Formats: sequence, C-alpha cells, structure tokens
Amino acid sequence: MTEHTYKHIEITGSSTESSDKAIENAIEKAAQTVHMMHWFQVIDTRGYIEEGKVKYWQVTIKVGFRLED
Amino acid sequence: MTEHTYKHIEITGSSTESSDKAIENAIEKAAQTVHMMHWFQVIDTRGYIEEGKVKYWQVTIKVGFRLED
Amino acid sequence: MTEHTYKHIEITGSSTESSDKAIENAIEKAAQTVHMMHWFQVIDTRGYIEEGKVKYWQVTIKVGFRLED
Amino acid sequence: MTEHTYKHIEITGSSTESSDKAIENAIEKAAQTVHMMHWFQVIDTRGYIEEGKVKYWQVTIKVGFRLED
Amino acid sequence: MTEHTYKHIEITGSSTESSDKAIENAIEKAAQTVHMMHWFQVIDTRGYIEEGKVKYWQVTIKVGFRLED
Amino acid sequence: MTEHTYKHIEITGSSTESSDKAIENAIEKAAQTVHMMHWFQVIDTRGYIEEGKVKYWQVTIKVGFRLED
Amino acid sequence: MTEHTYKHIEITGSSTESSDKAIENAIEKAAQTVHMMHWFQVIDTRGYIEEGKVKYWQVTIKVGFRLED
Amino acid sequence: MTEHTYKHIEITGSSTESSDKAIENAIEKAAQTVHMMHWFQVIDTRGYIEEGKVKYWQVTIKVGFRLED
Amino acid sequence: MTEHTYKHIEITGSSTESSDKAIENAIEKAAQTVHMMHWFQVIDTRGYIEEGKVKYWQVTIKVGFRLED
Amino acid sequence: MTEHTYKHIEITGSSTESSDKAIENAIEKAAQTVHMMHWFQVIDTRGYIEEGKVKYWQVTIKVGFRLED
Amino acid sequence: MTEHTYKHIEITGSSTESSDKAIENAIEKAAQTVHMMHWFQVIDTRGYIEEGKVKYWQVTIKVGFRLED
Amino acid sequence: MTEHTYKHIEITGSSTESSDKAIENAIEKAAQTVHMMHWFQVIDTRGYIEEGKVKYWQVTIKVGFRLED
Repeated sequence: MTEHTYKHIEITGSSTESSDKAIENAIEKAAQTVHMMHWFQVIDTRGYIEEGKVKYWQVTIKVGFRLED
Repeated sequence: MTEHTYKHIEITGSSTESSDKAIENAIEKAAQTVHMMHWFQVIDTRGYIEEGKVKYWQVTIKVGFRLED
Repeated sequence: MTEHTYKHIEITGSSTESSDKAIENAIEKAAQTVHMMHWFQVIDTRGYIEEGKVKYWQVTIKVGFRLED
Repeated sequence: MTEHTYKHIEITGSSTESSDKAIENAIEKAAQTVHMMHWFQVIDTRGYIEEGKVKYWQVTIKVGFRLED
Repeated sequence: MTEHTYKHIEITGSSTESSDKAIENAIEKAAQTVHMMHWFQVIDTRGYIEEGKVKYWQVTIKVGFRLED
Repeated sequence: MTEHTYKHIEITGSSTESSDKAIENAIEKAAQTVHMMHWFQVIDTRGYIEEGKVKYWQVTIKVGFRLED
Repeated sequence: MTEHTYKHIEITGSSTESSDKAIENAIEKAAQTVHMMHWFQVIDTRGYIEEGKVKYWQVTIKVGFRLED
Repeated sequence: MTEHTYKHIEITGSSTESSDKAIENAIEKAAQTVHMMHWFQVIDTRGYIEEGKVKYWQVTIKVGFRLED
Repeated sequence: MTEHTYKHIEITGSSTESSDKAIENAIEKAAQTVHMMHWFQVIDTRGYIEEGKVKYWQVTIKVGFRLED
Repeated sequence: MTEHTYKHIEITGSSTESSDKAIENAIEKAAQTVHMMHWFQVIDTRGYIEEGKVKYWQVTIKVGFRLED
Repeated sequence: MTEHTYKHIEITGSSTESSDKAIENAIEKAAQTVHMMHWFQVIDTRGYIEEGKVKYWQVTIKVGFRLED
Repeated sequence: MTEHTYKHIEITGSSTESSDKAIENAIEKAAQTVHMMHWFQVIDTRGYIEEGKVKYWQVTIKVGFRLED
C-alpha cells in the first residue's frame, strides 16, 4: 500500500576523510533513534580548513523516514 | 497575545486520488501526534507512474504549529 | 500585432474546497477591476489548518494582463 | 539490482478541467512513445484566462524514466 | 574531536519590538527543551500590520544543535 | 469568513537609522493610500555607504492587503 | 534627502527587433502613466518562434519608481 | 483546441556577434530536426574571453515545441 | 570554429560505491547512445538507505553534448 | 559620467549587539583597505548561540565599490 | 594539463548603448589589472531610467580567470 | 574575541581523480597567497568528459578567511 506518510529531518554529519563519509556518519548516528529511514538528499557541502588543508568535511542532508501507520 | 513561537516540520503525504488529497492525508496523519497545527505550505509535488498513469500523488508540505507557552 | 505590453499583479485567493478553486476565486475577484487578463502562474500554495483538517486553501498567483495600446 | 540509469524529460500538459488532469494528460501523451516512466515532479503550474475565468490549466512536469540496460 | 552530528530545526519567533528580538525570543523558547544549540540562520522575516504600523515581527530561523554522542 | 482575496505590492523604504525603521517607513508611507494591509515579508535588505559608513538603509518588502468584498 | 519610498511594478515588453528593444518598449509604454521611474531589473527573457526564427522578443522587467512625498 | 502537450529541450547557441545572435543561432540549428517550436526562455548567458575581449557569446535557452497529436 | 550548438540532457546514475561512481556510471551508460559529450554539472545528490546504511547513491547530472554541424 | 565599472566583494561582519551593528562593523573594517564603496546587500544573517542566548550576530554582505578610471 | 585553479570575481559594467556593450566595458576595464580571464556569466541585468528612457545599462557578470601555476 | 571580519572568495579547483580532490587542490593552491582560511562551501560541481569518461572534475567553492585585525 502506498498511502504512507513520510517525515523529513535535516542533519549535518562530519568526517575527516571524505564528503561521502560525512553523509554515512550522519545516517549512522541518526539510525540510533530514527527508524525506517528511506532516502537522503544533499543540501549543503562544507568543510573546515586548517593550515591550508581540509581538516574535516561537513555535509548537511535531508533524510526521509516513514511514519508508522 | 502575539509573542508565540512556532515550529515547522516537513512531511510528505500520499494519495491515489489527487494532489489535494495527498496534502489532507499528510495533515490527518500528523494530527495524531502534533497539536495546534496552524498552516501548511506546499514544498514539492511529485507522483509515481505505472503503465503510463499516475499511480499515486506525493506532496511534501511544511507544517507550522504553535509551541505551548 | 505583437508589440503589446503586459503588467503582472500578484494576488492570493482562498477556498474551503480545493487549491484549484482558490485560484479560480482569485481570478474571478480580480476580473471585477482588471481587464484583458491572459495568464496566471502559481507562486505559492498554502492553507490553514483547524482541528487537524484543511480549513481553507490559499494560493498566490501572478496574473498577466495586457495594457491598452 | 539498483545500478540503473534514468533520464528526465520536461513536458507541459493542458486541461480545461483541473491542474491534476493537466498532469495526467501530459503523462498519457508521453506514454505513447516513452516506456518505463517511474515518477514526475511538478515544475510550474500556469493557466490561460478568458473573460475572467480559467480557460485551461497548463502544468509543466519533469518525468523520469529508466534507460534499458 | 570534530566528528559530531548536528540536527537542524526550523522555528518562528515573534516580537512587538524588533526583528532581532523576534529571533532572541525564538531561541529562548527553544532552549527550554533543546540543548547544545550552536548557531542559527535567518530563513524569512515577516510581520503583521495593524492600522498602518508594524504590530509584531515574525522571524523564521533554522537552528543547529549537536546530537549527544 | 475566509474566502477573501489579497493583493501584494512590493515597496522599498529608506531610513538613516536602522533596517527595521526602513520597513516601518515603507509601511507608513504606503498606509496613506492602501487600506487593510495585513502582513509584510522582507525581500531584500540593502544600504548606501558614504565614507565607510552606512548612510541609509533600504529594505524592500512585499505587502499583502485585502481587496474589498 | 534619502528617506524616499519606492514602488516596484513588473511589466513585459515585446519587440520584433531585439531583447534590449523589448525592454525599451516596456519602459516607454509604462512612462505614459507612471512617473519618476528610476531603475529596472530584468526578470525573464523569452521569445516566440515561428518557422524556426525568433518572431518577437518578450522581456519581463521589474521597474522601481519613487512615490511622491 | 487547447489540450496540447509540449516538450522542452535545453540548448546552447554561440555567436561571435551578440547575445541575441547566439539565441537565433541555437534556434536555427534546432529547427533542422525539431518542428513546431513555439517559444524559448533564456536560462544562462555566458561568454568566452580572449585577450580582454568577448571572443564569443554562449546563451543557453529552453525551447518548447508541440508534440504531434 | 566556435559557433557550435550544444544540447543538454538530464540523467541520474546509481552506484553502491560512491557519489562520484554514480556520476561515472551515468556517463558511461549515456555514452552508448550519445556522442560528443563535453561536460556535466551535478544537479542533485541523493541516496537510498537500508538498515541505517547508504544502500546506493543516486546523482542527477546535466550533460552537454555538441550537435553535429 | 555613468560608464563606471564596479567590483563586488563578499564579507561577513560580527557583533555581540545586533544584526545591523554586524553590518556596520563589516563595512568599517573593509573601509580600511577598500575605497569608493557605494552600496551593500545582505546575503545571509546568522548567529552563534551560547546557553540559549545569541552570543554574537554574523551577517554576510556583498559590497560594491567603484574601480578607479 | 588540466589541474588549473580558477578564481572568480564579480563586476558590474555600464553602457549608454546596450546590455552587451555594458558587459564588454566591464571586461575591458577588468583586463587592465586581471590576466588570463577565460569566461563570464551574466548575474544580473539592470539599468537606470531618465524621462521614460533607458539612460544606461548596468550588467553584473562573474568573470573566471586562471591563477598562475 | 568574536568581532572578526571574514572575506569570501570563489575559486574552482580541478582534479583527474575525484570531486573531493578537486576541492583539496583548490584550497592548497589558494593557501599559497591567502592566510587564515577557515571554511569552504561547495557552490558547483562540474566535470569534463572525453570518450565517454570523466576526464577531470571541476568543483567551485566559496572560501572564507579572516581579515587581520
């Protein structure tokens, strides 16, 4: 059945490794309290710089999860 | 008194019938747990297609509700 | 001849029935004072909620009408 | 398997009846030549006005369909 | 350590005094239930008018707060 | 009754004092000819600079007012 | 004195000649009824095509004019 | 009859002469394979620079054409 | 010679590996039927989640290719 | 004479006091090295929060200044 | 070799003649101090009006130039 | 003390390897002349295609650095 309702939340994950890893970290963290997450969308990709190098990546995503019927 | 605070949430409702009905379904579902909802704004109207027909409508709305004083 | 000039106005119509009807109400009202309206474009679709139901729809449209030569 | 590729096209459908019907007309027409359409997203909702009434609705949608493997 | 996760919420504060005060009211209210708020970003500045004067200011902000590790 | 129609106009107010005051000046000026103004929304905040100081603030707002029934 | 108030209107001009000429036509037409126009900003540049050629240009501009003190 | 369906394509034309000419070149080229083109909309105006002068103009347009019934 | 015409298409590629790989998959697939592709631009980065992990990445790109003279 | 050229820079100013003051601080700082600044436009209004209060305001502005002839 | 770095600047050029000429003036002026400019993109097209006529055109462009290796 | 002023510049980095590497290259290059860079934000991700493969990635970022007090 398709008449589900979804809620979206916006979270920012960080990683010293890569932009993809920052997304994976955000989802892993959110999964501790949110269930039935289905998709994400990248909203903003940022990062912090120290001594002319990327110190860590920060990616903001919107995550959609299904509300229980 | 007008110095209220409002919170917004973003939800997606579905309907096999119409885009307006998808909005109504989302609000009805949210009303089970959120109180004092005042307004909504349409953010995105999408739908799924099967065999060249709209199978169901999916409308994402932002809903504003008042925080209790 | 095609060297017409058009003016655009932005109006919001309301309806307790549907989002399409809110648009029709806005245009009908505007037609009382504006002539030669040619087209509209939806700018924003909102609505008010009471007791977990859509109380009325509010759609903001931009309307284009021809200035008399 | 999930490593599909999708292509998007942008089309505008018309209807004298309603905005939802304009979308359905666009999809029905596209289905004559495009296969495996999966979803649509509303890009722009417009309409033409005659004598102070909506003469017909014109809705532009983006349609996604799967490329054959 | 920098691999924190942040969540964003969107709230609207009101004030009869000024647009800055509306933001401060929103944050003060949110602080009653949300901890570790770090930053805000203004999304929309609106207000209500009565008898040709600004009756109250309404500013919508996005607030970011850190999720506990 | 809620089936009102609203019209929006866009105006820019100026002030040597503050951005909020520029908004108040715009509304006060518009109130001389427009009645039943209900709300405003900030569209653009600018200003002019002279000798490294803000000479005056210029804020563009959209104002909504109700059309008489 | 700088505490002026400006109003903006949105108009579309047409020309069979060029996009710049469409803007000039819109302003010339508006000047018949609006005084103290100061600036314009291009919002949208479109045109109509006949037999694979640009039949006429249509440029939508926002025009700002000063309200009389 | 108004229940037509339109398809949009996005193309970029070039010209060493002017931005308007880049649009005309794009349409002329497209007309070799696409029929019943009705309108265009400018999406992006760019250009290439050589030795401090505009070497050629590149304008991206969206073109709408009618699908055959 | 620089008076070329380019066409843009919008495609979505998928990968279980990374966001960059999703782009490469989309381009490789498109290359089977489209020639003279020159550039791409990322439009949207999304992904699907299963059991709190990124199941696959979905990146939508716009691809520009040269029309034959 | 009006055939001037202007350059824009983007700067962020901070203030513990107000959003307007953050703008004034940014301009005052820039005036130490940039001459003939004419106008600014607000791009983004943010702030930092400590213990549920606005610790300082951060406003990003675009500043336009005239290049010497 | 393709691993170049480019910097973008935003400038506004003016012309009493045409919008294209305003762009050319901006680039010619910038070329006095900036080398290796490669491309531009139009950001905003505006103009000033005097006595119901375009007094001069003002076009804001982003210009990209290569940083020396 | 928090009353710092920041300046933003926009640069594009290239890499034959990955989109993240293009960002790192841009920052490394900028670090040769700009000091106290704090953060970046991705503005645009593009790339060049040769023979149906990504030849190199081009990512445009905005970089913020602190102005010396």
